[in-house]
Amino acid sequence: MTTVDVAAHLTTMRAQVPLVQCITNTVVQQFSANVLLAAGASPAMLDHEADAAQFARLANGILVNFGTATSHQLLAADAATAAAAESDTPWVLDPVSFGGVDHRTVHIRRLAQSGPTCIRGNASEIAGLAGAGAGGRGIESTDEVDAILDHAGRLAIDTGAIIAVSGPRDAIIGTDPEDPGRLVRARVAGGSPLMPLVVGTGCSLAALTAAYLGAVPADQGPDLAGDRFAAVVTAHVHFAAAGEVAARTAEAPGSFAVAFLDALHTVSEDDLTAVDVTVETVERTH
Amino acid sequence: MTTVDVAAHLTTMRAQVPLVQCITNTVVQQFSANVLLAAGASPAMLDHEADAAQFARLANGILVNFGTATSHQLLAADAATAAAAESDTPWVLDPVSFGGVDHRTVHIRRLAQSGPTCIRGNASEIAGLAGAGAGGRGIESTDEVDAILDHAGRLAIDTGAIIAVSGPRDAIIGTDPEDPGRLVRARVAGGSPLMPLVVGTGCSLAALTAAYLGAVPADQGPDLAGDRFAAVVTAHVHFAAAGEVAARTAEAPGSFAVAFLDALHTVSEDDLTAVDVTVETVERTH
Amino acid sequence: MTTVDVAAHLTTMRAQVPLVQCITNTVVQQFSANVLLAAGASPAMLDHEADAAQFARLANGILVNFGTATSHQLLAADAATAAAAESDTPWVLDPVSFGGVDHRTVHIRRLAQSGPTCIRGNASEIAGLAGAGAGGRGIESTDEVDAILDHAGRLAIDTGAIIAVSGPRDAIIGTDPEDPGRLVRARVAGGSPLMPLVVGTGCSLAALTAAYLGAVPADQGPDLAGDRFAAVVTAHVHFAAAGEVAARTAEAPGSFAVAFLDALHTVSEDDLTAVDVTVETVERTH
Repeated sequence: MTTVDVAAHLTTMRAQVPLVQCITNTVVQQFSANVLLAAGASPAMLDHEADAAQFARLANGILVNFGTATSHQLLAADAATAAAAESDTPWVLDPVSFGGVDHRTVHIRRLAQSGPTCIRGNASEIAGLAGAGAGGRGIESTDEVDAILDHAGRLAIDTGAIIAVSGPRDAIIGTDPEDPGRLVRARVAGGSPLMPLVVGTGCSLAALTAAYLGAVPADQGPDLAGDRFAAVVTAHVHFAAAGEVAARTAEAPGSFAVAFLDALHTVSEDDLTAVDVTVETVERTH
Repeated sequence: MTTVDVAAHLTTMRAQVPLVQCITNTVVQQFSANVLLAAGASPAMLDHEADAAQFARLANGILVNFGTATSHQLLAADAATAAAAESDTPWVLDPVSFGGVDHRTVHIRRLAQSGPTCIRGNASEIAGLAGAGAGGRGIESTDEVDAILDHAGRLAIDTGAIIAVSGPRDAIIGTDPEDPGRLVRARVAGGSPLMPLVVGTGCSLAALTAAYLGAVPADQGPDLAGDRFAAVVTAHVHFAAAGEVAARTAEAPGSFAVAFLDALHTVSEDDLTAVDVTVETVERTH
Repeated sequence: MTTVDVAAHLTTMRAQVPLVQCITNTVVQQFSANVLLAAGASPAMLDHEADAAQFARLANGILVNFGTATSHQLLAADAATAAAAESDTPWVLDPVSFGGVDHRTVHIRRLAQSGPTCIRGNASEIAGLAGAGAGGRGIESTDEVDAILDHAGRLAIDTGAIIAVSGPRDAIIGTDPEDPGRLVRARVAGGSPLMPLVVGTGCSLAALTAAYLGAVPADQGPDLAGDRFAAVVTAHVHFAAAGEVAARTAEAPGSFAVAFLDALHTVSEDDLTAVDVTVETVERTH
């Protein structure tokens, strides 16, 4: 794999309108739902254990984020991801502020070993989950993406998940479907420095990743891993393209958030194709 | 009844600043509160069983929506609606995503039979609650309003509630106060195709309906049913007018949501009067 | 104390990027986080008892607001404020809608006597907490700031907290650090009549107050009380300045909220210095 057909994945996602079940923190529920709607997906924030598994069987993709997790959400995540495993429904783990405090850390670490399709976080969270780094303080990242690429690669091998690290230049790392002895790594440049000043941009990128994964046909056999990797990359490209469009008209975080939602809706295949994406295969470092 | 004096109901609602207790899902709490404030009402999102009944005695109208209901919200709704019944305080049930999963469906069905003043949902939810249709997947509607008018009429008779069905052309159906053997049905055209791309538009329309109902004087005797029907219609007209104003300047969902809140605040009696509303009486079909 | 160096406090706060733990109602979590990010602080909405105390040891300031408090939030507030007391970490109590219903009133009254650095509310809430007035209905204030200044002063003496009363002309009242027998009182004019039409403006002002308090160095000894008073004043001045900037371009609540977030980010030291602030010492009235 040397390129990703982001235009095709955008078109497929918008045509499918994937239903995404979000078990996510209450701070970003509204923004995440609006991101999904604007981008072309369908959100459903069902996060109670009493209906999480049942709804997971209807959903095309699932997001788990324990930012403000109650006991209900912790139980709902177990129920939904267990149901997802039965049907190979893709699910994304967002290890928001992993390492900051013990309570969520225990549950995030457990879920990371429970077969997520993708784990998306910032550099600090991914490094912490890989066993390195000091962990986050809230939703900020204190490590740089470049500095933790080896950790991210190790996490990809350990968990079997596609690892996505958000930053000024995102990194998406997975096992190479054409050569399991190697890793494939994409880098996506773009976005805007205003994005970290809007709460929920990272969390909603994880939600959009679940949407793109949910739009990949489930019956493709050997190419599935490759298509899932490309879906994760395209979610990040969609975000980067929208961030750049929004930054052309907005200079402060309030208006940026509005312009960003607009841009998620209006960006075209050409806008996504224009984003700087590199894909390379790399040796496993351990 | 052949017309609705929407200008008078708008003026009354804004003069009363009705206090609306919202027991609603966490995804849309912020947007619903902003809709109520912009339109002229006063929101209070008290949703804990420990103070729900006490606060319901202070409120002018109540909304119940179980989109992300916890045990607290389920108990709070029972407490608040029981208190509302004692004082004939109007309350609105929003059967959000009825039929999708069992947990909420049980509670929605039970509350629908507990004397709501109004039930407001999309076509899929209303049809499902009336015993037909497949129910919703998340907040999307898959049935058309026109196709489920008979179901909505039956639900009006079965529950005694005014039934409001949201769609491109809303339908509001209730027992004719001048002839209980007939139904009265209003249709409200307007709004914008961008509204379903902003999370919480339907949920906040239900909140605004509770506000308009809360502004109807409680001591009017025989005209009360008619005024309550007109209040529900006016809430929908207010939404439609604001949606049309917003659509004149906004072409994507982020800026539409902002313009919509602005328009809820700035629309005048003339704007509401300009909305296309038809009212007719229809035979009961069973 | 006759003046407050608001420019210095703004510069310090933005340089420190204080980490603010918010245990606050779900209606305003998103807006409060965006206010903190736009103003220059770092939000973290951890509100579960299982990690509240541990995170409080990492935080620079803490906010407690029981607007939609669950049992988790009530326990989290006890844990976080107990941890804060050990390290003299400042914390702010927002007695939102105190007096409306018993459940929250009990907990708010108890926390008000547990050593908050600051209590920030509207006139009705502060008067109610001081033992006067009818309490609030939702988040609206029915008493005027001027009418309850004596009550606020008494509450400052009774609790040892800096009392901030929000209104058209805010009042901030504390024990005079230079003469404990007197009170010092600041008044801050500004803002916009549109602010009460955006949900969460009051709640997020309390969050920003915690941010400014969290940016005051902890090891200043005798000047600490004075600096904390000035920090609370500066938070209100920052809000007032941003409100005035926003009101220059926005005429309705939707666009005002966007412009307000923008202005929190873009206002300069000069903008804050231009706000009308008076500081005077007053006799204790009892």
